[in-house]
Amino acid sequence: MKIIVQKFGGTSVADAPKIRNAARRVIKAVENGYGVVVVASARGKQTDQLVADALELNPNPPKREMDQLLSTGEQQTVSLFAMALEAMGYDAISFTGGQIRMMTDSSHTKARIQSIGAERIHKQLDKGKIVIVAGFQGIDKDENITTLGRGGSDTTAVALAAAIGAEECEIYTDVDGIHTSDPRIFKEAAKIDEISYDEMLELAHFGAGVMHPRAVEFGKKYDVKIHVRSSINESNGTIITHEVPQMEGVTVSGATVQKDMAKISLVGIDNTPGNAAKVFAHLSKAKVVVNDIIQTEISPEKANLSFMINLSDLDAAKEAAEQIKDEVNCDSIFVRDDIAEVSVVGIGMRTHYGVAEKMFGALAEAKVNIDSITTSEIRISCAVDEDQAEMALKVVCTAFELGKPAEHRRKS
Amino acid sequence: MKIIVQKFGGTSVADAPKIRNAARRVIKAVENGYGVVVVASARGKQTDQLVADALELNPNPPKREMDQLLSTGEQQTVSLFAMALEAMGYDAISFTGGQIRMMTDSSHTKARIQSIGAERIHKQLDKGKIVIVAGFQGIDKDENITTLGRGGSDTTAVALAAAIGAEECEIYTDVDGIHTSDPRIFKEAAKIDEISYDEMLELAHFGAGVMHPRAVEFGKKYDVKIHVRSSINESNGTIITHEVPQMEGVTVSGATVQKDMAKISLVGIDNTPGNAAKVFAHLSKAKVVVNDIIQTEISPEKANLSFMINLSDLDAAKEAAEQIKDEVNCDSIFVRDDIAEVSVVGIGMRTHYGVAEKMFGALAEAKVNIDSITTSEIRISCAVDEDQAEMALKVVCTAFELGKPAEHRRKS
Repeated sequence: MKIIVQKFGGTSVADAPKIRNAARRVIKAVENGYGVVVVASARGKQTDQLVADALELNPNPPKREMDQLLSTGEQQTVSLFAMALEAMGYDAISFTGGQIRMMTDSSHTKARIQSIGAERIHKQLDKGKIVIVAGFQGIDKDENITTLGRGGSDTTAVALAAAIGAEECEIYTDVDGIHTSDPRIFKEAAKIDEISYDEMLELAHFGAGVMHPRAVEFGKKYDVKIHVRSSINESNGTIITHEVPQMEGVTVSGATVQKDMAKISLVGIDNTPGNAAKVFAHLSKAKVVVNDIIQTEISPEKANLSFMINLSDLDAAKEAAEQIKDEVNCDSIFVRDDIAEVSVVGIGMRTHYGVAEKMFGALAEAKVNIDSITTSEIRISCAVDEDQAEMALKVVCTAFELGKPAEHRRKS
Repeated sequence: MKIIVQKFGGTSVADAPKIRNAARRVIKAVENGYGVVVVASARGKQTDQLVADALELNPNPPKREMDQLLSTGEQQTVSLFAMALEAMGYDAISFTGGQIRMMTDSSHTKARIQSIGAERIHKQLDKGKIVIVAGFQGIDKDENITTLGRGGSDTTAVALAAAIGAEECEIYTDVDGIHTSDPRIFKEAAKIDEISYDEMLELAHFGAGVMHPRAVEFGKKYDVKIHVRSSINESNGTIITHEVPQMEGVTVSGATVQKDMAKISLVGIDNTPGNAAKVFAHLSKAKVVVNDIIQTEISPEKANLSFMINLSDLDAAKEAAEQIKDEVNCDSIFVRDDIAEVSVVGIGMRTHYGVAEKMFGALAEAKVNIDSITTSEIRISCAVDEDQAEMALKVVCTAFELGKPAEHRRKS
């Protein structure tokens, strides 16, 4: 039997009519001959409500108890989902993460999946049942309930699809797929039909919110075809898959903007081996997540070391920088808290020239000042003033014709 | 270490201030040197809300899924309870029924406890932790979540107290103990200091809502001292325990009224062995719960067979009676749907005379018509007209001086 995994997020199961709507998508797949495994998130704002309930009792709740609490949200959805399917005449059975042996480590609130027991699911599918699994949650070896953190239900769905050998993992959302850019900023943003895991990872890391990077990484690692599509209409969404040759024809797949960034520069540190390592080890100890690193020599003995962080980490990062300052013989520390990063992403960059030129040109023409530039093999990011960020994204999108489907863009 | 079990019902944990209030009761026991195991129910109206959510999707939800859904209510409470204790500076850990191996059969929505894993609880108590266990729920051998049905959290608490060898099981409620009668009807009803399991069982079966009979049965079977007391004040409540000699001095411990009853009479059935058995086997198949049975010979060949049921079972019972009518050669079926049952209960009845006389006399004086009478060793029940029921209870309470503490009543 061909198996498909269908994941429904919180907005797609927020109330009874939406659960019924989602159930109809499941039934359609069943009628098409698929064995269907559903992964569901907590209903609408349920998780937020539970978090508020917890904080009312304890401003700093123990993480194990947080997981025990929050995991009830998905458990409620899956049982309700199964009831809805039964009412529509289809056999269904719901499982918690623990019940299907979704084994994780014990890092509460951000656990990592270690293994999944596929047998119980296969057994139910063989009986002709639709299997509904609670996303976002697992158990550790002592049966403590764990949760996977942000994007956890996507990760559950993709990991399950890998474990049970599903043909495809459908991620249902309230948009009709991945877009070349954020439609709230660049209204004309076109839907992407197909994108590689690597491009999706860069887009996700740089602010495209639809899929969580961890889920995409799982898909890449276990070769799971992911289909991001609308829970409202039936049109095809975006397939995330392994790189295929025709993808290279598309120079730039998408553009993103990541706001609320800050930049810290250690000016004039000793340019000796190991100094950068010292700085980042120290930041890591302070639990600061570093996004981008830029180091440039300013003399044979001295260098400037800059890094981008989320604004929310700024205080911790400043403190850590002050602590390490003398050890690396830093002249001064320079902080910017009004930074945003505009990025373009595309596998095609590897073989096409002129992407950087076109991006910088568009920004220059719009009089956007570029603070700093970082690149990967398939990405170029420019740090710009926060208040120019949306305008900068728009001019970049226009320059790369991201309002048109890929096949209609001018070849560069 | 001396261990105590404290059970908090839904109203005692309805919101954050109430959970904190309950946590303070726990802390007091800890400070008194007890190892404390808390059993908690779902918060306030949470279960009702979940039932409504289910019925919106499926008017006849599968029971397994109902259990999967409803068990989240207690799971939320216990994690929040643990968070509250942590915030107050005490180590606590919460467990679902499954996590402490509360093993039950697979009768979803009314499962029976088979065994409890005490080790995990002892281990945590030995570490100095307060252990919070979700009431009302367990798992079957395939790790399906089950629930224990009405009064399930009381049963969990008493069963746990037995399994871990607790000194006492405290049941916290919004009243300050068991009363001689329902204070909503007989305002002067006195609190009972001590009552035997058997008396409590009779009272519970006949409408006294504070403790569920199953929990009392567990207490009797495993010799668990149960203390029903107020979550609002600190005064002693009612101890439910094994019969002690001084209890016999109290003729009548309490009086109850059970409303919404119906009576079905099979008039003139053949008085041959096995006919009554046939009738009740048939009713049982129709899932009708029979409360009281009255059979009287009306001739050497014929008898009248009557039984009391809850009004909600009336249609099913009438249908079942019609089906069996010819088989037992019944002349006619007579139904009353306006019946209530007033009962007095007391171990003292075994050795004291005149209880029946006093009860019937009080009812006669108040011009209450008695439809039928049933008795057990420690109970007398009179079926009366529903609209005379409350008045009947009041006159019976007055006759037995149930407004006074037991030691202040006239000796009969």
